[in-house]
Amino acid sequence: MTCHMTTRAERAQLAMMLEVCAFPKPGNVDRCHDFETTRLEHFLASTIYARPALEEAETGQGRIGEIIRHAVSATNCHAGGNTHFGAFILLIPLVYGGTIAGAIQAIEKTDVSDAVAFYRAFSETTVRMPARDELDVNDPKSLQVLRDRDMTLLDVMQHSARNDMIAREWVTGFPLTRRGADLLKTSGSGRGAIVQAFLALLASEPDTFIIKEHGVDVAQRVVVRAREVLDGKVPIETFDAECIGQGINPGSIADIMIAALYIALGEGWEWDF
Amino acid sequence: MTCHMTTRAERAQLAMMLEVCAFPKPGNVDRCHDFETTRLEHFLASTIYARPALEEAETGQGRIGEIIRHAVSATNCHAGGNTHFGAFILLIPLVYGGTIAGAIQAIEKTDVSDAVAFYRAFSETTVRMPARDELDVNDPKSLQVLRDRDMTLLDVMQHSARNDMIAREWVTGFPLTRRGADLLKTSGSGRGAIVQAFLALLASEPDTFIIKEHGVDVAQRVVVRAREVLDGKVPIETFDAECIGQGINPGSIADIMIAALYIALGEGWEWDF
Repeated sequence: MTCHMTTRAERAQLAMMLEVCAFPKPGNVDRCHDFETTRLEHFLASTIYARPALEEAETGQGRIGEIIRHAVSATNCHAGGNTHFGAFILLIPLVYGGTIAGAIQAIEKTDVSDAVAFYRAFSETTVRMPARDELDVNDPKSLQVLRDRDMTLLDVMQHSARNDMIAREWVTGFPLTRRGADLLKTSGSGRGAIVQAFLALLASEPDTFIIKEHGVDVAQRVVVRAREVLDGKVPIETFDAECIGQGINPGSIADIMIAALYIALGEGWEWDF
Repeated sequence: MTCHMTTRAERAQLAMMLEVCAFPKPGNVDRCHDFETTRLEHFLASTIYARPALEEAETGQGRIGEIIRHAVSATNCHAGGNTHFGAFILLIPLVYGGTIAGAIQAIEKTDVSDAVAFYRAFSETTVRMPARDELDVNDPKSLQVLRDRDMTLLDVMQHSARNDMIAREWVTGFPLTRRGADLLKTSGSGRGAIVQAFLALLASEPDTFIIKEHGVDVAQRVVVRAREVLDGKVPIETFDAECIGQGINPGSIADIMIAALYIALGEGWEWDF
């Protein structure tokens, strides 16, 4: 049974809620696992606090960069740190445009004001950038560089796409979001399908958040290990314990999973098995 | 860290979220335990879907009976059944009035239209009434009786107060809600305080939902057992397993706990330890 009156904002909130509740999700906060300072409740509080920004996006009015900043500000008011920055980068244009095609249209219309608002949002988070990036968010000169070059938010994502799979989704038309939604739809319904789709995404691309934290070799090993779980060679619980033990957190693929859940829910996928 | 801009509706949503995530909560759905057809995700989906009705209550406009009906309708659109009917009976006047004093004022102003709307909401749920109640919600004649006697919603609660501790909260000025909020504040912060306060409420009054399902003797035994847990004589995990094994679900005290969390959050209690 699915609510016929579900709004886009509610679907985005459901996506955030369903992603964090699914288990076991190797290395991530899930129903059965907290990080020391970021817990299930923080993710769910962010899900609640995000509503006004998601509703703002749903109107299809206003500027995407500014709406992302509103979402980040609204969800920064708990001690769990940044829970959904990457997810908002994907969700806000998707909710704004309604679909992937609509999101692509919307992000093509971003301008330098979106880029500046986004950098302001970024600087409110503790998310790391690659060392010595010429557009480092922690360097106040970056805003001037954005303005001097008249960079749009899409240009900023282009700049980051090589090292960041979330930015790459913007630049390449949300292919992993699309794949995640399709994986959900072919994996049945509910919690089990989320875990299946998450594993399949993990097995297909190295998570750039893991690359930033642990380097490319560790990220590649996670891809191989996820494939072994999918092939039934390794129990998922073993893989989960390995990731947790080594502090390996596939945070970017989790963000893409949220975007995939949003799309799948809009296409009739059933969370409520 | 608490968000300074948290609205009443958000506090009510946080209360619903925090209550269901706390564990172990003997006999109830919690982070570590689902019922067969009602799962953690259903409670959290209701938390999301309840937002418009809670915002309606926050305006302090409109009629309480109708707003309760809106909350029930909005959260009925998943397969988990009724998750928060009792909680809404308490939360809607509390959010409407802002405080317990404000809620008491608001419920004194209810009239027969609130009673009728409430009965309509009730009939959308699967909540049971005592056998052969002359105001049975499943009997279409009840609406006529309400109108003939010009009963207010407060009169309806008076009628139910002997057998229902949620109705009793309306009639007696929310004493258990108040006690629950005080227990939270004296039990520290976060998840542990919720479990402590829940146990203390369980140890103080028989849960009328348990009485309806299993009779007064079982409900009294739960009171004794909760006291033994508080006194360190029985591990909470044992008590939880007993409740789950016997299908004992202290659902009304869980509803009161949500109301208590709402009040405590408004008084500065910290969920975010």
